[in-house]
Amino acid sequence: MTTDTTPAPLPGGLGEMHPQRWGAPTAATDLPESARGLVEMAFGLHPTPAVETPAVPASALGEAPLAALRDVVGEQHVLLDDDVRRLRTRGKSTPDLLRARSGDLADAPDAVVRPGSHDDVAAVLAVAVEHHLAVVPFGGGTCVTGGLAARRDGYAGLVSLDLVRMKQLLAVDEESMTATLEPGLRGPEAEALLGERGLMLGHFPQSFQFASIGGFAATRSSGQSSAGYGRFDAMVVGLRVATPRGEWVLGSSPANAAGPDLRQLVLGSEGAFGVITAVTVRVRRLPEVKVYEGWRWDSFAEGRDAMRHLAQSGLLPTVLRLSDESETAINLARPDAIGGESESEGACLMIVGHEGTAAQVASRRTSVTEALTALGGRPQGEGPGESWAHGRFDAPYLRDSLLDVGVLVETLETATFWSNAEALYAGVKQALESHLPGALVLCHVSHVYETGCSLYFTVASSQGEQPLETWLAAKSAANDAIVAAGATITHHHAVGTDHKPWLSAEIGDLGASVLRAVKADLDPTGVLNPGVLVP
Amino acid sequence: MTTDTTPAPLPGGLGEMHPQRWGAPTAATDLPESARGLVEMAFGLHPTPAVETPAVPASALGEAPLAALRDVVGEQHVLLDDDVRRLRTRGKSTPDLLRARSGDLADAPDAVVRPGSHDDVAAVLAVAVEHHLAVVPFGGGTCVTGGLAARRDGYAGLVSLDLVRMKQLLAVDEESMTATLEPGLRGPEAEALLGERGLMLGHFPQSFQFASIGGFAATRSSGQSSAGYGRFDAMVVGLRVATPRGEWVLGSSPANAAGPDLRQLVLGSEGAFGVITAVTVRVRRLPEVKVYEGWRWDSFAEGRDAMRHLAQSGLLPTVLRLSDESETAINLARPDAIGGESESEGACLMIVGHEGTAAQVASRRTSVTEALTALGGRPQGEGPGESWAHGRFDAPYLRDSLLDVGVLVETLETATFWSNAEALYAGVKQALESHLPGALVLCHVSHVYETGCSLYFTVASSQGEQPLETWLAAKSAANDAIVAAGATITHHHAVGTDHKPWLSAEIGDLGASVLRAVKADLDPTGVLNPGVLVP
Repeated sequence: MTTDTTPAPLPGGLGEMHPQRWGAPTAATDLPESARGLVEMAFGLHPTPAVETPAVPASALGEAPLAALRDVVGEQHVLLDDDVRRLRTRGKSTPDLLRARSGDLADAPDAVVRPGSHDDVAAVLAVAVEHHLAVVPFGGGTCVTGGLAARRDGYAGLVSLDLVRMKQLLAVDEESMTATLEPGLRGPEAEALLGERGLMLGHFPQSFQFASIGGFAATRSSGQSSAGYGRFDAMVVGLRVATPRGEWVLGSSPANAAGPDLRQLVLGSEGAFGVITAVTVRVRRLPEVKVYEGWRWDSFAEGRDAMRHLAQSGLLPTVLRLSDESETAINLARPDAIGGESESEGACLMIVGHEGTAAQVASRRTSVTEALTALGGRPQGEGPGESWAHGRFDAPYLRDSLLDVGVLVETLETATFWSNAEALYAGVKQALESHLPGALVLCHVSHVYETGCSLYFTVASSQGEQPLETWLAAKSAANDAIVAAGATITHHHAVGTDHKPWLSAEIGDLGASVLRAVKADLDPTGVLNPGVLVP
Repeated sequence: MTTDTTPAPLPGGLGEMHPQRWGAPTAATDLPESARGLVEMAFGLHPTPAVETPAVPASALGEAPLAALRDVVGEQHVLLDDDVRRLRTRGKSTPDLLRARSGDLADAPDAVVRPGSHDDVAAVLAVAVEHHLAVVPFGGGTCVTGGLAARRDGYAGLVSLDLVRMKQLLAVDEESMTATLEPGLRGPEAEALLGERGLMLGHFPQSFQFASIGGFAATRSSGQSSAGYGRFDAMVVGLRVATPRGEWVLGSSPANAAGPDLRQLVLGSEGAFGVITAVTVRVRRLPEVKVYEGWRWDSFAEGRDAMRHLAQSGLLPTVLRLSDESETAINLARPDAIGGESESEGACLMIVGHEGTAAQVASRRTSVTEALTALGGRPQGEGPGESWAHGRFDAPYLRDSLLDVGVLVETLETATFWSNAEALYAGVKQALESHLPGALVLCHVSHVYETGCSLYFTVASSQGEQPLETWLAAKSAANDAIVAAGATITHHHAVGTDHKPWLSAEIGDLGASVLRAVKADLDPTGVLNPGVLVP
């Protein structure tokens, strides 16, 4: 048992997320006036309030496992209250929100357990094995693929393993430029601790304000500045994992040839192989200068070609994002101006951001500007860039406002090699549009590599009578289209339970078999996030 | 069965390696005069000829498996001749050479089987499972860690699966900048095929002239230009693998979040999980300009600090290598001048190479020169760089010349984080020097990362009465020192059988358990390279 520690409040006063909405209630906003008009025209406004304070099922945890859990982490860290369990029910996909809004919190855990250390986690897992409890590791709760909705049938209870007390910066090695972080640190908390030493991770997914270090690692997260700072999995050099079979520590060196890189087996394991209790990451110096600017391209294909050119010439800026014609037309890259006046008719907006020392930014910006100009891009100045940067974490709040007025909104993403990007784009768009008549299907390239890119789709449609079923059918068709195109079922949202039916098509029956073999080896009684990831 | 194809000769006329020496007999040279004096002074000259044409054990393969193998690949591709089997016995570590020189070829395979396609490989594996044959995939035969010396006890025979017929460039995607290569292509063959299209891999390990694409992938190889072009595992985006349980294809996208990256489980699997039958790699444009130059540093530590600065500032050149004081003193970085006049007394030689377009090289060279000058480096011009580039693949030939005169020579390598480099260096050096009195222990940094670097040691000593036992004891002490320092047992030479006893210390008992679980899943009867890699 460890000493109680009160979790530090999030910078900016962001606390727990609302159980039926994204983000902190204090940060929620109404639909901006500019967007309201667009929405009314496209779908009509149909006030669709959520059920207030939906009930959670009574905790089914028996006395014996409860006593055992209390014994290992202390009574105050085993929470059975409805209010707490409500906050640990599922994640933040639109299906999750639709269920919660309709009053369905059937997946609520029987208890929320808050370990304070690696040893606490190990002890909780031992209790879980002994009493056959399903354990769902919980970091920021931002999952959008059903990774927090573990199977509970056949288990004596379902425990949310809330890592909220594990928020220490355990070590910093300024010579090697690495830092070791506990998994419960949310994005802003980790950056604040590193920032005190002039360091940063540079990992800014849209979920940044709430998502956690453990979650970033467990889901192979990728952020909006991945062009410059890399995917989260590329930042990780070491891991400490608690498994039902004991402690597992990996990370002898930046890279090596000592057999397969087993770190890459833990990264993306979504709590199914073990609970990540510490992550050692490569860090960078805080940038002195940040400049974000807009560029305009005549078509999505031309803009993508320009991105490809940058990636293949070693000229990547820190941030690189390209909206297609539809997304550009409604200003989605600038949430404060959605539906507002756009000067980009028929064109595509690219956001280009440079961060670093003044000299680095000046030099890189000159090279990138030269390259983009030569390729036919038209500079739009810093206005669109600043606007994007200002609203970069706000889109999920907008979704709630839209759900409130009867609009169904969701995102999905994939990635492929450059030569397949157009076919993938067309295939997914067609699948969504044919399943959601009248829908807006928007897309942007969110991440680029030398050999390919991701495509991130945003879909808006009328909710209709059965929004959940309607969306699930459309999403299923989109997944089929992704598989048919030979692309990945998820570039950065992970597998969870939602993508699992399509995973074997991507990694093969042998890949699925290997995941089962690893799972059986590390978690022989199957207590870790059952039903998640492993086909 | 596939049509016979005669393997194309290697560019430069390099063919099969000599069974007791590195490289092509035509390329072998006597010890350079300059080195001869140094060696005579340090160790004396003791002519130590190898046993001529050592005998290989008679093939123990039974009639039934032989017939089955002939049936699937054709009689002409199942070779039992002593001459052929001699060439497929073990790899090219100094222990391998010492054994072969002393007449011991006990590990010779019972047959050399040459599949022509993925389907052939799959069919051979089916025969192996049916008849319980051990199968050792063979690419270039350059392994230095016992990866070609599989266990044969309990098997009905040992087959060398020679991939020499699988040398096709299967596909090139110039938009995505990827190429799909068959595993039997040796380094120069792959580069020649890509070069016809103005493309390259940029993977130049010291074994480049003989090592194969399949081997690069199976061992997580890293080349001399890794600072610019990356490790081989970082180049791979797709894999096709034949396993006893069927075909396994991976590589939906450059990167994704669809669970663990299973490509990283195949990379480094050393033939123990499956046979890699195709590798899709990221390629680059052939450089227009190549410039290699020398820099001098007052100490190994100062030179390492400069490397670290470059890596952490995003200023890496294409080639970056730093010799310690001892290695610099005997000119090891310049094999044509070893033991010759050195102007570098008490100093350390760094090789810095720039490749790319003229503009890229000019710009990068200016930045790197500025940074190195500011850090106290003294430019030595292109002489030392050209000399290094000229001899970059020659050191293994020198080893043979030294073995001929009674000198024991071997290399070993490791990697760690920057803050641990000095302790690792001192620990390994001390272990080697205390086990090999009078030995020369030389070291260079061969690969750098933002968070750390590799250390590559070269050891020369008198052979004495029992050179094999003497070396194995010293190597064991060095491995213990590496483990004690928390570093990796191998940065780019792989595990094989030689490093296996130390692997669990690095990846943990759970890591070893996971490797066994994956092996059992993919290769349930254990026919693939038994005894290699998996603890």
